[in-house]
Amino acid sequence: MQITPFQTVVERLTRDQTPRVWSLLISVFGDLAQDPGARVSGSLLRHMTEQIGIKPEAMRVAIHRLRKDGWIDSERNGRNSVYFLTPTGLAQTTQATPRIYASGQPAKRAWFVMSNPGQPTATEDRPGVWITSNVLITASAPDRGQVFVTPIENGTVLPPWMSARICDDATVGMSQDFAAALEDIGPSLDAAPGLSTLEIAAIRVLLVHGWRRIVLKAPVLPDHVFPEDWRGPFCRARVADLLARYPRPHLDALEAAIA
Amino acid sequence: MQITPFQTVVERLTRDQTPRVWSLLISVFGDLAQDPGARVSGSLLRHMTEQIGIKPEAMRVAIHRLRKDGWIDSERNGRNSVYFLTPTGLAQTTQATPRIYASGQPAKRAWFVMSNPGQPTATEDRPGVWITSNVLITASAPDRGQVFVTPIENGTVLPPWMSARICDDATVGMSQDFAAALEDIGPSLDAAPGLSTLEIAAIRVLLVHGWRRIVLKAPVLPDHVFPEDWRGPFCRARVADLLARYPRPHLDALEAAIA
Repeated sequence: MQITPFQTVVERLTRDQTPRVWSLLISVFGDLAQDPGARVSGSLLRHMTEQIGIKPEAMRVAIHRLRKDGWIDSERNGRNSVYFLTPTGLAQTTQATPRIYASGQPAKRAWFVMSNPGQPTATEDRPGVWITSNVLITASAPDRGQVFVTPIENGTVLPPWMSARICDDATVGMSQDFAAALEDIGPSLDAAPGLSTLEIAAIRVLLVHGWRRIVLKAPVLPDHVFPEDWRGPFCRARVADLLARYPRPHLDALEAAIA
Repeated sequence: MQITPFQTVVERLTRDQTPRVWSLLISVFGDLAQDPGARVSGSLLRHMTEQIGIKPEAMRVAIHRLRKDGWIDSERNGRNSVYFLTPTGLAQTTQATPRIYASGQPAKRAWFVMSNPGQPTATEDRPGVWITSNVLITASAPDRGQVFVTPIENGTVLPPWMSARICDDATVGMSQDFAAALEDIGPSLDAAPGLSTLEIAAIRVLLVHGWRRIVLKAPVLPDHVFPEDWRGPFCRARVADLLARYPRPHLDALEAAIA
């Protein structure tokens, strides 16, 4: 049996990943079922996950876990079960959505904040990255007063020891792997003009999932403060381009396709 | 005997100072004898220092010390000795002059420099103030690379713990005392329109000396990074105003006045 371009794309996008099915399902619901009242049938979930190589048993375990964690819930609809995000799951999904789908950098400006080294405030709950116990790089400037606050000029490249604390090696490495995958799938996608609605949904989910695992680990800071070998900006732009090229199918169309 | 306005001014300008005569003599030479070939007679030095309450014996000791330190030298001129700055003394005087006589702030911009806390470079010979072992505030930006460098926006007020390290309490206190003296002498100077050439020279020396003791202890940084109670900018402006109001007398005129 010949391998289709779609199968090549799926294989490449799943190659570097540990298959955490519950996490992948979060991407499925996040991309397809954020609308109020959106319901995804068990059959559709099964079909979509099978398409990308996940076994039915693993899917059932993941569904169980997400229900237990209060992320999704289900109800009966005739002979079938339908699944949907709980208010908690929806809230967390909604919060992450702008970051995952953004085509531009997550923040326009970085601020350098230094508190009194005699009185470190590392435990303070402020978004950003603590470079040392009293030095924070953040996208939202705190009030001046007891802390020293200065904007970091756009485009300023941080020294390597500092940018290494902005984003750890593991996350940088993931961005490189994902960037390579995104580059590799280009020719296959160009060779597959006639993707089905279900295939488009699967590719979207894999793109969202691959990028989500990375972007949510990275701080909300402008690109220039990241390590030199961070490939986040490329991944972000490429994912945004592909999601625009393959618009989100409507749930009804997907359910109809498997009926 | 009535106290003249000149005497009131001298008394006020010398009140807060420990009488370090050798240091005062440096101010005398700095203000009057920087020109190449300038010579100051022993008689003139004696007259000027007596005018501001220094005993001849203390003056002789100070002259001895400055000669021993290689700051000044002397030669015979008939029955009198004449004194002059050595090349060393002149070089140090010339270096300090722009700072002492400046009417504007010593630097337009401050830069924040942070080196890797794992490899502190506090021993590095870079002008500026080390806030911690790896954080420097400086007016001259070093090359980027291993250090993080960012300009501090004009007008940025530093938090108190940080500005306290820019300029120590003792120097801030001296600026307050000197500012108070400068404010106090205003009425006396206005009441003394007919100051003699020698009196003008003495007042100039006291102004230069009073400010020199302070400004050379302060870092070369823009005013906004100093502590809130630092009165350097007021002192600097007032000294510059008064020196402009009482132009430097020529040495020949001073020597003639005591002949």
